[in-house]
Amino acid sequence: MSIRIGILGYGNLGRGVECALKQNPDMELKAVFTRRAPETVEILTKGVPVLLADEAEKMKDEIDVLILCGGSATDLPAQTPKYSQWFNVVDSFDTHAKIPEHFEAVDETAKKGGKVSVISAGWDPGMFSIARVYAMAALPEGENYTFWGKGVSQGHSDAIRRLEGVKDARQYTIPVESALEEVRSGKNPELTTRQKHTRECFVVAEEGADKAKIENEIKTMPNYFSDYDTTVHFITEEEMKRDHTRLPHGGFVLRGGKTGWNKENGHVIEYSLKLDSNPEFTSSIIVSYARAAYRMNAEGQSGCKTVFDIAPGYLVAESAAELRRKYL
Amino acid sequence: MSIRIGILGYGNLGRGVECALKQNPDMELKAVFTRRAPETVEILTKGVPVLLADEAEKMKDEIDVLILCGGSATDLPAQTPKYSQWFNVVDSFDTHAKIPEHFEAVDETAKKGGKVSVISAGWDPGMFSIARVYAMAALPEGENYTFWGKGVSQGHSDAIRRLEGVKDARQYTIPVESALEEVRSGKNPELTTRQKHTRECFVVAEEGADKAKIENEIKTMPNYFSDYDTTVHFITEEEMKRDHTRLPHGGFVLRGGKTGWNKENGHVIEYSLKLDSNPEFTSSIIVSYARAAYRMNAEGQSGCKTVFDIAPGYLVAESAAELRRKYL
Repeated sequence: MSIRIGILGYGNLGRGVECALKQNPDMELKAVFTRRAPETVEILTKGVPVLLADEAEKMKDEIDVLILCGGSATDLPAQTPKYSQWFNVVDSFDTHAKIPEHFEAVDETAKKGGKVSVISAGWDPGMFSIARVYAMAALPEGENYTFWGKGVSQGHSDAIRRLEGVKDARQYTIPVESALEEVRSGKNPELTTRQKHTRECFVVAEEGADKAKIENEIKTMPNYFSDYDTTVHFITEEEMKRDHTRLPHGGFVLRGGKTGWNKENGHVIEYSLKLDSNPEFTSSIIVSYARAAYRMNAEGQSGCKTVFDIAPGYLVAESAAELRRKYL
Repeated sequence: MSIRIGILGYGNLGRGVECALKQNPDMELKAVFTRRAPETVEILTKGVPVLLADEAEKMKDEIDVLILCGGSATDLPAQTPKYSQWFNVVDSFDTHAKIPEHFEAVDETAKKGGKVSVISAGWDPGMFSIARVYAMAALPEGENYTFWGKGVSQGHSDAIRRLEGVKDARQYTIPVESALEEVRSGKNPELTTRQKHTRECFVVAEEGADKAKIENEIKTMPNYFSDYDTTVHFITEEEMKRDHTRLPHGGFVLRGGKTGWNKENGHVIEYSLKLDSNPEFTSSIIVSYARAAYRMNAEGQSGCKTVFDIAPGYLVAESAAELRRKYL
C-alpha cells in the first residue's frame, strides 16, 4: 500500500513535489489543494483532483501526509500549526530566526492531533543543517563555514525589483573561490561577509530610467548589498528571458577541526551541492521527509520534528536490512 | 553527570578514543581494558586504571558505554556480541560483506541485556554510508560514487609486507582526478576499477632482494593490485620513517541525479573528507556514537543500531532546542 500524499499550494515548490512523487513509487498523489479557483489550476498528474484549500480537512482520512508548499513569510506560520492537527505534515519553513517559535506552535497542535509534523525540510535549512551537526559530532573542536551559490537568491532579486525604474532583476550569490580554498586548507580563517560572497545582478531597466542611480541604489542597499562587492549588469528583456529563467543554486558546508592529544592532526569535512533547480531539489528532499513522517507516526510518534530528530534510514524506501547490506 | 566510558583495546583506535574524550566534556574515561599485561600499557590520561579485559564485566555498573577498539577480522565478531550483554557498546566493524551477520549476532545479545549496541561507526562504514543514504533520499533517480584517498591503506600495505624480500611497505590509494571531475560534471559515467583509483607503493627491500621481482609481484597481485595502475618506489628505511609514518586518508562520496517531470534538471551532491589521521578521525566519530548509545538506552531502547538508525541530534552534546536555534 502506498503512502497517500496531498499537496497544499501549487507554485514552484508544489510542482516540484508533484515531480518528485513520480520518482518515489511507494508514494501516491491523492489531491492538490489551492487557494486559487481550482478550475484555473492545471497540474501534471492525470486523474488527480485539484481542490479548494478549505476542503483539505474533509480528506484527513484519505491522506497520510500533507505537504505544505506555501511561503515562510506568511503562509507557513499559519498553515503548519493549523493542518498539523489533522495530518502528518512537512514544510520547508526557512526563516532561520523564527524556527524556535514555529517549532513550539506546531509541536503543540501536532501532539494534540497525534500526528508527526516535520518543519524546515529542504537543503538550508535541511541537508546543510545536517552536514553541520554531523561535522560537529566528528570534530567537536573546529569551525563551521557555509557558502551559498552560485545561485539565484529570490529575496535579493525581489529587493532589486522594488526599486524605481526596474522592470525585472535576477541576483546571483557567488562564493569567493579564494576564501573557499583557504577554508579547505584547514586554516580555519576568520572571514568577513565581504570576503565570503560576491553578488552579481542582472537588471532590466524601464525605458528612460536613470541607470547610474539604480546601480548606486543597489550597491548601497543596507543588509542586502552594502556589505558585499556587487556587480550590476543592465540587460534587455530578451536577454533576461534567454539566459536567466532557471533557478540554479548550491553551496558548501565545511568544517575544519583538530584531533590528537595535543591537537596535532587537522581534518576538513566538506559537503556541497550543485543544483540546476533549487525548488525541485528542495521538493525532492521534502518528499523523503514525508516518508519519514508517515513511518514515525505509524510507530506511534507525534509532535514536531526537525531533520535533527530523524534517523537517515527513515528517508528512503529500502528496508533497514537492505540498507545495511547495500549501503553501510 | 558525565557519561562514563570504558575503552577495550588500546592500539591506534583506543588511543584515538582517549584523545577524543578529552574534547567532549560531557564524557569521562573510567577505565582502559587490555589483553596485554596491564602494567605494560601506558595511557595518556592521568589517574585512569588500565585493567585486564577479563575484568570488564565486573565494572558493568560503573561504565555507561564500552567502546570496542579491536580489529574487524577476529576481535569484534567475538567481542561485540559478548560485551553487548553487559554494556552499551560501540564498534567500528568494517568488513562490509559481514555486517548483516554481525548485526544479527549483536542484536540478539543486546536485546537480551537491554542495552544499545552501535556497530560499524566511523567514516566508511559511517559518515560515507550516511552521505550515500541522504543523497539517495534527495535524488532517488541517480548514481552513487565513492572514491577513497589520498590515503594509506593498511590492508594493501600489509599485503606487500608479506612478500619475500620486503622489509617494510606503505601503500597509498589515490583517486583519479579526471574521473572525479567527470562525476562532478553530472554525467554519471560508468567507471571501471582502474579508472577510479591508482595505487602508489613505497617499499623498503631487504638487502640483496630482487627488486624487479618484488615490483612484478606487487603489480600482478590479484584483488589487491592487478586491476589498478600501480607505481612502486623503492626507498630506504630512513625515508620510510621520515616521510610515511602518518596515517592520512580521506575520500569522496558523490551522487548525480535528475529531477523534473521529464528529468530535465541535474544535480550533484558531494561529501568529502581530508584527514591527517585516519584512526583519530574514526575514533572521534565513535565517541559521538557512544553519546547516542547512552541516550537511546536511557530512553528505553535496546538492540543493535547502525548509523542509519540514529538521528543526528543524538550525536552532539547540545540540546535539541539549542540545535534548532543555532544550526538549523
